[in-house]
Amino acid sequence: MSTRLVLSDTGAKFAAWESAFHKAAPELGLVHDEPSRDLSGIRYCMTWKPLPGVYDRMPDLEALFVLGAGVERFLADAAIPPRVRIVKMAEPGLTQAMEHYVLWQVLDHHRRFWELEAAQREARWIDQTYPAPWERKVGVMGLGALGEAVARVLRSFGFDTRGWSRSAKAIDGVTMFAGAERIDAFLDGLEILVCLLPLTAETRGILNADLFRRLAPGAGLINVGRGAQLNEADLLSALESGQLTAASLDVFAAEPLPPKHPFWRHPRIFVTPHLAADVDPESAALAIQRQIRRFEAGQALEHVADRTRGY
Amino acid sequence: MSTRLVLSDTGAKFAAWESAFHKAAPELGLVHDEPSRDLSGIRYCMTWKPLPGVYDRMPDLEALFVLGAGVERFLADAAIPPRVRIVKMAEPGLTQAMEHYVLWQVLDHHRRFWELEAAQREARWIDQTYPAPWERKVGVMGLGALGEAVARVLRSFGFDTRGWSRSAKAIDGVTMFAGAERIDAFLDGLEILVCLLPLTAETRGILNADLFRRLAPGAGLINVGRGAQLNEADLLSALESGQLTAASLDVFAAEPLPPKHPFWRHPRIFVTPHLAADVDPESAALAIQRQIRRFEAGQALEHVADRTRGY
Ligand SMILES: NC(=O)c1ccc[n+]([C@@H]2O[C@H](COP(=O)([O-])OP(=O)(O)OC[C@H]3O[C@@H](n4cnc5c(N)ncnc54)[C@H](OP(=O)(O)O)[C@@H]3O)[C@@H](O)[C@H]2O)c1
Ligand SMILES: NC(=O)c1ccc[n+]([C@@H]2O[C@H](COP(=O)([O-])OP(=O)(O)OC[C@H]3O[C@@H](n4cnc5c(N)ncnc54)[C@H](OP(=O)(O)O)[C@@H]3O)[C@@H](O)[C@H]2O)c1
Repeated sequence: MSTRLVLSDTGAKFAAWESAFHKAAPELGLVHDEPSRDLSGIRYCMTWKPLPGVYDRMPDLEALFVLGAGVERFLADAAIPPRVRIVKMAEPGLTQAMEHYVLWQVLDHHRRFWELEAAQREARWIDQTYPAPWERKVGVMGLGALGEAVARVLRSFGFDTRGWSRSAKAIDGVTMFAGAERIDAFLDGLEILVCLLPLTAETRGILNADLFRRLAPGAGLINVGRGAQLNEADLLSALESGQLTAASLDVFAAEPLPPKHPFWRHPRIFVTPHLAADVDPESAALAIQRQIRRFEAGQALEHVADRTRGY
Repeated sequence: MSTRLVLSDTGAKFAAWESAFHKAAPELGLVHDEPSRDLSGIRYCMTWKPLPGVYDRMPDLEALFVLGAGVERFLADAAIPPRVRIVKMAEPGLTQAMEHYVLWQVLDHHRRFWELEAAQREARWIDQTYPAPWERKVGVMGLGALGEAVARVLRSFGFDTRGWSRSAKAIDGVTMFAGAERIDAFLDGLEILVCLLPLTAETRGILNADLFRRLAPGAGLINVGRGAQLNEADLLSALESGQLTAASLDVFAAEPLPPKHPFWRHPRIFVTPHLAADVDPESAALAIQRQIRRFEAGQALEHVADRTRGY
């Protein structure tokens, strides 16, 4: 069987990908890249941390399937010829894991986990109450493959859910806002804010003091987008002043988060080491197989990153 | 308007109930009981902590709507005449809150929250992995108004879900087991066990060493049934030996949990002060109104406790 797809990655567990493709898509004849391998004739590549020179060695590359979520590094990589379509990862395993993480953390905020934990430390039986979910205003920034699914799940769990995206869209039961001119209306009075934006020139530093001030006093923040979207000093001040009550952070400006970083020791910041949602090789193999089939049948690839928009 | 429903309760927030019934079911003319009030002629009563002598003062009582979940105290109360139907609370607000709590805690176990928290305390960036949800075996004991809803939600979140009840039933996508003779098959290899059983002679002490041994090594326990279902010493030993890894407990043999109780200080026990799920007066008023309408139209009441079964 001829090779149609190459995995060029310094970190990926090739065994897991190989067995997933062997099972789901043997016709693609997946091979692993090696530094000096000649890859001419191969049109498809999957990568997260590409091997050196891979784009030079793939003169026939047409579509680059990015194996992680977030394509900012690839859009900024001048070595990738403009003709190559950069395809964002969208597969049900990743989406479901993100739904899990966000719902988990929204429930931490909704049920004021830190208050329960503090009471437990002091062996205090408290009489905690919490609003009905439909009285809890939760907002999702970014309604792409992940944010849209997350907004739907929050809605199905009864929360008063809002969503914000660049272009207008509709999600049943979710109050929608689109564009920079609607962000204030979106933020106004939100009690829990979830960030699932891609990192672009517009979204860099978007989670800042000015934004926090528009939320309900004592709001909670969940950042699962990118660390560079958050102004870290502003977050610390907002927690200090009570403008925000707590934050769940999965992504950081510098990863791994340095040992001396104040986030580690903050009692109202829950740090998770960028594990909110991982790609599942088995369901990703099926998604990539489907994309290649569509493409070879003359249809457009889905989830192609747009170099102008930056995501 | 004549009074058809009385709230006899020493603890309930009458104002909340009154406004809920005023809005949803004004035709029932809800009144609050007082110690010497003559309640003859009234056929319906709602209660959680009844006022003294209420049953003597209600010679015409036909249905007692229990305002909290769990009817063991009422079934054991000899002052309630056998003709009175004891109606269990089943309303969407309570159910949704329980879905939230259980999913929240299942995600704590699935994502090994304690490991993340320990890593944060030590400012360690760890490389945590977790199985896909469909590789995570979660079981729900008790598939009543609450357990069935919870099992459906776990299933919809992708978990490999099993359920156990007394009588046989079916839930789409959930592997079902019924009766004492199937409990071992139900438990075998479960990684997260959720207890949503009512307290009866059969379920008292059911969460014990013998049961823990049948679960997967290192399993997690979530008890939202009743404290008396758990053998506390057996739980501590199972955590000690590693047979269990962690427990989320919302209910206790003695409530409030005494300040010296070892559960408070256990690093792998998350104590919540019996707040997993509360009745929502607004949706409960609608549910009770619907029950009374059905009953007066000659239909049977739903969720009537069975004195012989004990729940
Ligand atoms: N922490 C983790 O483990 C993890 C895992 C996966 C992903 N992520 C992060 O999540 C991000 C989102 O992933 P995705 O697959 O859902 O991305 P996506 O499909 O590209 O969707 C991006 C969404 O953000 C919106 N958006 C972009 N720029 C905007 C702006 N300036 N103003 C308002 N809305 C804007 C887009 O609006 P339109 O709908 O109008 O285009 C779209 O709804 C990734 O880029 C990555 O950074 C993190
Ligand atoms: N922590 C909290 O905040 C909180 C809140 C609400 C409720 N609860 C607890 O949750 C319990 C369940 O509530 P619910 O409304 O779902 O009760 P329910 O509708 O009465 O359902 C009870 C379920 O348990 C099963 N069951 C009873 N005895 C059994 C046995 N010996 N073996 C196997 N299965 C048995 C029943 O089987 P069948 O279907 O065959 O009858 C039924 O599925 C309550 O009794 C209460 O203790 C706690």
